[in-house]
Amino acid sequence: MTDAAPGSSLALDTPTVEKILLAFLRDECRGAGFSKGVLGLSGGLDSAVVCVLAARALGPENVTAVMMPASASSPESLTDAELVVKETGVRSRVVEIGGMADEYLEGVPDADRVRKGNVYARCRMIVLYDVSAEVTGLVLGTSNKTELLLGYGTLFGDLASAINPIGDLYKTQVRQLAEHLGVPERIRAKPPSADLWPGQEDEDELGATYAELDRLLVRLVDERVPPDRLLDEGFDAELVRSIVKRIRRNQYKRRIPLIAKVSARTIGPDFRYPRDGALARDRRLPR
Amino acid sequence: MTDAAPGSSLALDTPTVEKILLAFLRDECRGAGFSKGVLGLSGGLDSAVVCVLAARALGPENVTAVMMPASASSPESLTDAELVVKETGVRSRVVEIGGMADEYLEGVPDADRVRKGNVYARCRMIVLYDVSAEVTGLVLGTSNKTELLLGYGTLFGDLASAINPIGDLYKTQVRQLAEHLGVPERIRAKPPSADLWPGQEDEDELGATYAELDRLLVRLVDERVPPDRLLDEGFDAELVRSIVKRIRRNQYKRRIPLIAKVSARTIGPDFRYPRDGALARDRRLPR
Repeated sequence: MTDAAPGSSLALDTPTVEKILLAFLRDECRGAGFSKGVLGLSGGLDSAVVCVLAARALGPENVTAVMMPASASSPESLTDAELVVKETGVRSRVVEIGGMADEYLEGVPDADRVRKGNVYARCRMIVLYDVSAEVTGLVLGTSNKTELLLGYGTLFGDLASAINPIGDLYKTQVRQLAEHLGVPERIRAKPPSADLWPGQEDEDELGATYAELDRLLVRLVDERVPPDRLLDEGFDAELVRSIVKRIRRNQYKRRIPLIAKVSARTIGPDFRYPRDGALARDRRLPR
Repeated sequence: MTDAAPGSSLALDTPTVEKILLAFLRDECRGAGFSKGVLGLSGGLDSAVVCVLAARALGPENVTAVMMPASASSPESLTDAELVVKETGVRSRVVEIGGMADEYLEGVPDADRVRKGNVYARCRMIVLYDVSAEVTGLVLGTSNKTELLLGYGTLFGDLASAINPIGDLYKTQVRQLAEHLGVPERIRAKPPSADLWPGQEDEDELGATYAELDRLLVRLVDERVPPDRLLDEGFDAELVRSIVKRIRRNQYKRRIPLIAKVSARTIGPDFRYPRDGALARDRRLPR
């Protein structure tokens, strides 16, 4: 809870956050016995930020950026991704996923664009994990906190990773960090898109701007303000209601499969190691 | 902790466990707003058990069994899966995944059979999740506790599901339940195999029989007996050492992606609903 103006807690101390995230990437890779990272580079803001962080934390020679355009992707996306590769000096490759996805999709002509988009996102996961096996690296996640809370991503697709350096940053915070890290203006300026079909834009699909969503989410989730008090603060009642519902409904994307409990010690909350707790990361917060 | 002979706690009260698992499937499907279930039916023991449970819990007309043979699969597997479909009366379909997998694999000729197996397992996940979207059902997991503890499965592949009725049962317990449920003898008698390449057998790959592994795992995990005491009980020192290491090393397959903590409330242990706790399931234990 804070006394500052609503949403002001979204302001990021970017140099400190950069330090935390570089230490996270280094420590978690080494701790798991890896020196390399692999990520899907879309040409969008989030993966650009992860690419810059990974290049700085692990060294560009230890980072493989995989570009996986589909026929429905904007051609500009690949150009923007290549710009990030050039500026960071990471290794890169382009893998076509259209053949794999369409081989399946041709058999299900009735699939709507959401189903198609999920198939594409999961084909990209297959490629990323296979590249990670080839180069012996960890898959770095590129989902931000706004997406994770709203379930705006494909389970076992773009939501799949080993470690995610930006999953605790809202989209508007990723933007602040991107500016601090020197991500090219061209990438920072374009409207966010999952790039699964032409003209798709996140803010159209989500029904609000990221600025509005993040101001609401930080109050609701981080500062635990009850929804009715948010109405007094001027948030739109319909937006608050729909977002609360959406966060709840998408919890399944943020947890492991639910196992029927029949023994005294079931995989899940009963069976954990100390490092599974997020609090184990607290040693990295500034002292 | 138990005073009974080592491993005796593996004996299952099969009628009670059946009741618990049927209630789990019904309650969790309904609770999530679904009436249908989708599962991958391989022709092996685990998916046969899940298929019988799902047919009883949800009604056979509400269960879709998807058979996804690959060119490397044993032809017997499909025959056995079809027998389960016939005996349970569930809906079913056969989806070829070879085209999708090979479309990618032809581009990576150096991939070893483990990488290939992972691509196949993940293509099956894509199909299952797409079918679940088509029929509006939940994907039912078919991994058992032995596999989950040893990490003997593909992350985001066969390990992916919404709910898993048998994830708290060791392989030898699944066998007991299979007999109780009347799973065909032919399926119960054959050697367990991931069926990813010809002649593959679980017990060869794991380096011990499921009977040995489960006796060890139940002492180690459920009864929390320290490894050195297990040596006194006659367990092989090398086996104990390798299994302890294997359980630890595979913890990443049993948790959500690790997110770098920068806020007070990070997705993961900080952000949960009461039903995320396994203890929430305790109301289903016999009273």
